[in-house]
Amino acid sequence: MPEHASTRSIAVSVVGASGYTGAELVRLLLGHRQVRLVGAYGKSTSGSPLAEVVPSLRGMTDLSIRELDVAEIASSSECVFVCLPHGRSAPIVRELREGGIRVIDLSADFRLRSVELYQQWYNAHRAPELVGEAVYGFVELYRAPLREADLIAVPGCYPTATIAALAPLLRENLVEPQDLIVDAKSGVSGAGRSPSHAAHFPEAAEGVRAYKVGGLHRHLPEMEQELSVWAQDKLKLTFTPHLVPMTRGILTTVYGWSQSESVTAGACTEAARRLYEGSPSIVVLDPGTNPDTNWVRGSNRLHVSYCVDSRTGRLIAQAAVDNLVKGAAGQALQAFNVRHRLEESCGLTHAATWP
Amino acid sequence: MPEHASTRSIAVSVVGASGYTGAELVRLLLGHRQVRLVGAYGKSTSGSPLAEVVPSLRGMTDLSIRELDVAEIASSSECVFVCLPHGRSAPIVRELREGGIRVIDLSADFRLRSVELYQQWYNAHRAPELVGEAVYGFVELYRAPLREADLIAVPGCYPTATIAALAPLLRENLVEPQDLIVDAKSGVSGAGRSPSHAAHFPEAAEGVRAYKVGGLHRHLPEMEQELSVWAQDKLKLTFTPHLVPMTRGILTTVYGWSQSESVTAGACTEAARRLYEGSPSIVVLDPGTNPDTNWVRGSNRLHVSYCVDSRTGRLIAQAAVDNLVKGAAGQALQAFNVRHRLEESCGLTHAATWP
Amino acid sequence: MPEHASTRSIAVSVVGASGYTGAELVRLLLGHRQVRLVGAYGKSTSGSPLAEVVPSLRGMTDLSIRELDVAEIASSSECVFVCLPHGRSAPIVRELREGGIRVIDLSADFRLRSVELYQQWYNAHRAPELVGEAVYGFVELYRAPLREADLIAVPGCYPTATIAALAPLLRENLVEPQDLIVDAKSGVSGAGRSPSHAAHFPEAAEGVRAYKVGGLHRHLPEMEQELSVWAQDKLKLTFTPHLVPMTRGILTTVYGWSQSESVTAGACTEAARRLYEGSPSIVVLDPGTNPDTNWVRGSNRLHVSYCVDSRTGRLIAQAAVDNLVKGAAGQALQAFNVRHRLEESCGLTHAATWP
Amino acid sequence: MPEHASTRSIAVSVVGASGYTGAELVRLLLGHRQVRLVGAYGKSTSGSPLAEVVPSLRGMTDLSIRELDVAEIASSSECVFVCLPHGRSAPIVRELREGGIRVIDLSADFRLRSVELYQQWYNAHRAPELVGEAVYGFVELYRAPLREADLIAVPGCYPTATIAALAPLLRENLVEPQDLIVDAKSGVSGAGRSPSHAAHFPEAAEGVRAYKVGGLHRHLPEMEQELSVWAQDKLKLTFTPHLVPMTRGILTTVYGWSQSESVTAGACTEAARRLYEGSPSIVVLDPGTNPDTNWVRGSNRLHVSYCVDSRTGRLIAQAAVDNLVKGAAGQALQAFNVRHRLEESCGLTHAATWP
Repeated sequence: MPEHASTRSIAVSVVGASGYTGAELVRLLLGHRQVRLVGAYGKSTSGSPLAEVVPSLRGMTDLSIRELDVAEIASSSECVFVCLPHGRSAPIVRELREGGIRVIDLSADFRLRSVELYQQWYNAHRAPELVGEAVYGFVELYRAPLREADLIAVPGCYPTATIAALAPLLRENLVEPQDLIVDAKSGVSGAGRSPSHAAHFPEAAEGVRAYKVGGLHRHLPEMEQELSVWAQDKLKLTFTPHLVPMTRGILTTVYGWSQSESVTAGACTEAARRLYEGSPSIVVLDPGTNPDTNWVRGSNRLHVSYCVDSRTGRLIAQAAVDNLVKGAAGQALQAFNVRHRLEESCGLTHAATWP
Repeated sequence: MPEHASTRSIAVSVVGASGYTGAELVRLLLGHRQVRLVGAYGKSTSGSPLAEVVPSLRGMTDLSIRELDVAEIASSSECVFVCLPHGRSAPIVRELREGGIRVIDLSADFRLRSVELYQQWYNAHRAPELVGEAVYGFVELYRAPLREADLIAVPGCYPTATIAALAPLLRENLVEPQDLIVDAKSGVSGAGRSPSHAAHFPEAAEGVRAYKVGGLHRHLPEMEQELSVWAQDKLKLTFTPHLVPMTRGILTTVYGWSQSESVTAGACTEAARRLYEGSPSIVVLDPGTNPDTNWVRGSNRLHVSYCVDSRTGRLIAQAAVDNLVKGAAGQALQAFNVRHRLEESCGLTHAATWP
Repeated sequence: MPEHASTRSIAVSVVGASGYTGAELVRLLLGHRQVRLVGAYGKSTSGSPLAEVVPSLRGMTDLSIRELDVAEIASSSECVFVCLPHGRSAPIVRELREGGIRVIDLSADFRLRSVELYQQWYNAHRAPELVGEAVYGFVELYRAPLREADLIAVPGCYPTATIAALAPLLRENLVEPQDLIVDAKSGVSGAGRSPSHAAHFPEAAEGVRAYKVGGLHRHLPEMEQELSVWAQDKLKLTFTPHLVPMTRGILTTVYGWSQSESVTAGACTEAARRLYEGSPSIVVLDPGTNPDTNWVRGSNRLHVSYCVDSRTGRLIAQAAVDNLVKGAAGQALQAFNVRHRLEESCGLTHAATWP
Repeated sequence: MPEHASTRSIAVSVVGASGYTGAELVRLLLGHRQVRLVGAYGKSTSGSPLAEVVPSLRGMTDLSIRELDVAEIASSSECVFVCLPHGRSAPIVRELREGGIRVIDLSADFRLRSVELYQQWYNAHRAPELVGEAVYGFVELYRAPLREADLIAVPGCYPTATIAALAPLLRENLVEPQDLIVDAKSGVSGAGRSPSHAAHFPEAAEGVRAYKVGGLHRHLPEMEQELSVWAQDKLKLTFTPHLVPMTRGILTTVYGWSQSESVTAGACTEAARRLYEGSPSIVVLDPGTNPDTNWVRGSNRLHVSYCVDSRTGRLIAQAAVDNLVKGAAGQALQAFNVRHRLEESCGLTHAATWP
C-alpha cells in the first residue's frame, strides 16, 4: 500500500442506514481506516441516534440519522452508498448523480442492463437514463471498469454466490450453459429488517422451506444476464431459493452437465483459481471440501468448491457467502476501494467469526 | 375399526431404545392404545431406567433398559422393533427371526433387495438369507405385502421423502426417469445421538452445508432401487444431502424434466392424489403452496407439492417430512399397524407441534 | 375410566383459533377422543380454512374459521375455549356466559380476583361482574372447584411454572415468602403470532435478553395473588422475564431463603411430591437433575427440581414447561377434562417430542 | 497513538490454537496491525494447516500447527498466549516463563490468588510459585499492574460479565455485598470444542437448562475473589449458570439489595460510567435499555445496565458479553495491548456482527 494512501481519508455517507445492509455497511465503514462516515440518512428513523437504531453501535458513533438531503451530501461526501429497496432507490440515485456525487447503489435498480427486463421483473424504471452508466459491482469480474465508475450497482446476494461459482466454468467452457439448476439456501436476514410472518422466529426457526419456486425470484434475470456474458450465449436458469433457520449466509448448490468427460473437479478448481488469482475475497476449496456458511459469516469471503458425480456425470458447484457482507455491504465496500484506488480488501480482511 | 380391535393389545419390544429413532418409537408406542411396550433393550445404557436415558419420558414409564435377550423377547413379545445401526442389526435380526419373532427393522440392512449392492455400499451382509423375505416398509406403496410380512425393512429418511415425491410421477410417466436431481436438506437429528463435530452445536448452528456430495450417500442405492421399480427402468440419481441448523425435518427439492409439454403442476398434483388416496399420512398440497418441515415436525405426515417452471420447463417436486417420524419411527409403527390389521394411522394421527 | 366416558363426545368451539394458543388447542382437541371440535372462530382470518391458517393441520380438518357468532356457539357447543388477547376477551366471555355457554378463557381477563388490581395492571375491566364466578384453572391446585366451574381462567405461562415450583414450599413453610426472586427464560412463541421486531428471526436468534425488568410484567400480580394464598400472607416477587432463541418453553429459576437450616433439597422434593401426588402432569425430579425445556416440549408435562446451595444457604427451585401446552392450551384442556368428569389427562398423555 | 507505535510489530505465538478461544485469538491477531503471529501450537492437531483446523481461516494464513516447542517460542516470540484447559496450562506456563517468555494465560490456572482455593476447586497446582506473579487480566480494573505484568491471567467468561456489572456498585457502596445472586445465561461455545451430549445440536437446540446449580461452578471462587476486593469484605455469591441455544454470548442478571433507598438506577449508571470512563470496551446503557448478547456478538464490547425494582426495592444489574471475545480472547488481546503500550483497543474496535 503506497504511503500516501494510509493518510488519505474519504468522506462518505450512507442512505438507508437503518436496514440490515445499511447497518452492515456502517459497521464495515467504521472499521475502514481510510474512510470517514459523515452522514447516515433514513426516513422512518430520522432523528434517532444511529447507535439506537443499530444497537451494536452503542458507544461507537455519535451520528444521528437524518432526513435525506442531497445538497448536504453533495457538500459533505465524496461518495454515497444507497441502501434502499428497489424502486425507491432509482429517483434518489438520479438526484445524487445530478448533484455530482459518486454513488454505490445496493438496490436492484441498476443491476440489469436492459430497462425492459427491469420493467418486466420489477416496476417502471424511474431513472432509465442512468442504466447505461452503471457498472456491475462484482469486483473480481469487473475490476477494470469499476476503477472509473461513478455509479456502481452492487450485485444481489444470490447472484454473488451463483455467479462466483459458475463464471470460471462458463469462461473455460467446462459446463454446458443451458440446463443449469441453482438450488440456494439463504439465512433469514436476506428478507430484510421489516417483521413478517415468514421471518417470525416461531415460524422460521426449526424449519426449512422453498419460496418463489418455478422461476419467480427477481434475482433470476440478474444471474442470467451475467452468466450469459460468460457463456457468450443467452442462457436460462432454474433457480429455487430456500429459507433456512439461520440469520446470515447463502449456500448455492449448482447442478450442470460438464462439456466433456474430461472435465474433472480438479479441472474446475483450477479454472476457478485462474480466474480468481489475486482475489483474496474468493477462496477456491480443494475438491472434497464442501463450503459451510459458518466459515464465512461476518467476513467478505466467498468459498467455492467443485465436484463431479462419477455415477451420473453431473457437475456440482457450491458457493457459500455471507449475504450481508460479500453478498451486499462488503462487496459494496470492495468496489468502493477499487474505485478509489485503495487496497481492494481494505477494511475487509477480517476473518469470519467462527464458530 | 372393528370392535375387537379396540380391546386388543399387542406386546412389543424395542431393541436400541436409547438412540433417537428408538426413543421416538418408544414415544409413539406409549401413545398407541393397542400396544403394550414390554421391553426396551440397549447395550451401553443397559441397566438404566428408560426415563433417564430418554429424559422426556420421566414420570411416564418404569421400564429399564436391559441387555438384549432373544429368548426373553421371544417369550414376551409378538413383534420387535430393531433400531440399531446398519451392520449391527442383521445378525440380531437373524437371531430374532430364528426365535420366531416378527421383526420391524429400522436399519439399512434389509432395505436393498440385492445383497451385492448392499455389500458394495455398506459391508459384508451378515444375514443375506433373510434379504428375500424382507418387505420394504414404505406403507403407501407396499400395503398389500406388508399385511403378511414378518420382516419389514423401514425406509431411510431421505428415501421416504424422495420416493414419496417421485413415485406418482414415474408411475404415470410424467417425469423423465433419467437425469433426476435430488437436493435434500436435513435436520441434525438425522446424524444420530452420538456427539460429533458435525453435530456440535457451535459448528452446526447458524450454518448450512452439503456433505457426501457427488453420489456418496448410502441412501442413494435405496432410492434408485425403489424409483426404478416405478420407472420400470434402471435409473440413477444425483443426490446432494445438506445439513441445516434444525433438529428435525427433511425437505427434498427434486428437479426433473417432464415427459411432455402437457405436464403441468396440476397434472402432477392429481397423479399424487390418485396414488395417495386413502393415505392420510401423505398430504398433497395445492400447486403454489410449498412444504415446510415446520408443518410436519413431530407428526407422521409428509407434505408434497409440485411445480413446473414455465421459463425452463423444469419440473420441481418437493417433499417435507419429520425424519424421525414418517422418516423412521412413525413409518415403522404405520407398517406395524398394517401388519397387525389395526387402523393404519392408529397412534399416528396427532398433528405436528406447530409452531 | 368409567365405561360410559369412553363413548361420550362433547361438542366444543374455539374462539381465536388462529393465534398460537388457539392453534395449539385445536391440535390437542383433534387428538382428544371424547371431544368434537365443531367450530373455530376468528376475526382477521374468518372465511379461511383452518388448515390454511394453521398449516400443520392440512389434511386433518375441513373446518373453516368463521366470524364469532354467539348464538351459533350456544346451539352447537357445550363448552367454548376463548383464546383472545386480554381486554378483547372479557366482553365476548360475557356474551357467551349470557348465552349459557360454559367458557374456558385463556386470556388474563379473569385470572385476577381483584378488579382493581386488574385495572391497575391492564385496562378497565369489561365484565367485572364475572370475576367472582371465575375459577383459576391451575388444575393441580384447584381441582375441586374446577369440577363445578362454568368460567375457568387458565393461568398464564410464567405463573404456571412459577406457582408449580413454589406452591409446595410455601404450603409447608419451607421457604421464606418474602424476598423471592423469579428469573424466567421464555421461548419466542410466548410473544404471540403477530410479527414484531422482538420476534424477528435475525434479531431474536442467537441472542438472549431480559425485558420488562423491574416489576413491569403483567404476570406479576397473578403470581403474587396465587402464591400469597399458599403463603397465607401477602407477598411480593422480583420477576425478570428473558427471551431465549427457541420457539417453545419456559424455564423459571426461583431463588428464596429456606425457613430453617433443616430445609434440604430432599425435603423440598418430598413436599412437592406430596402436593402433586396423583398429578401425572407434574414430575418432581430428583435433586441433582435440572429441568430442561427440551424434555417437556410439545407435552403437557411440567418438570420441577429443588436445590439448596450449601455455601450460601439459598434455596433454588426450577420449573420447565411448554408455554403453549401446560402453560396454556394443555392446561385449558386439562381443566376441561376435570370439569367434564373425564380422565384428567385425556388427550394429554403424549410425551414431549424429544429431541 | 505515538508515531513509532504504528510501525512496531510484535511477534507472538498461540499455544492451543485449535480450541475455540485459541481460534478466536488467531482471528483477532490476524486483524491486529502491530502483531505478527509467528507460531500456532497444538497437540492432537499438530501437523495440520491452521486453516484446516479453523476453517474460517482458509486463504488467510499459511501457518501450520506445530507440537509445542518452548525453545522455538523463546527464540521467535516476544509474548505467547496459552489457550489450554486448566491443569494442563500451569506446567507449560512454568516452562515458558523459565524460558523468559511473557505469557498471557487464558486458563483458570493463575486467576485465583490463593493456591489453596485453587486446589479446593480444581486440582493440585502444578506451578504454585508463579501464582504471586500473575496479574488478573480484567483490563478496566487492573490497567496499571498490567502494564508491567509478565504473566497475565485472563478472567473467565462468567466472571468478566459479573464483575463488570458489580464492581462499580461495590466500589461506591451502592449494593449490599452479601446476598448477591447471579443468574447467568451462556451460549454453547462456552463448553468448548469437544463434542458432548450437552452441546449436541439436537439436545442443545430449542432448550434452556441450568447446570452446576447450587454453588458448584468453578468460576465462583474467581468471582468472589474479585468482588471481595471491591467490597473490601469477603463475600459469597449464589451463582446459577444456564445453557441457552446460541453459539456465543453470556448474559448475567444479578440481583442484590441496594444499600439505601436513595440508590436509583441512575445512580448505579453514573457509578459505572465513572469507573469505566475512558474504557471503550464497556458501554453503560441508559436505564430502561436491556443488554442483548446479539448486540455484542463478535466484538470486544460489554454492555451493562441497571434497574431498581420500585415494588420490591431489588437492584438488578445486567451485563452482556461475547464469551469468546471480551470474555476470553479479546480480553487477552486487550491486556496484551496494555502490556505492550499499544493503544488499548488496537485490533479490537470492530463492532458486533449484527444481526
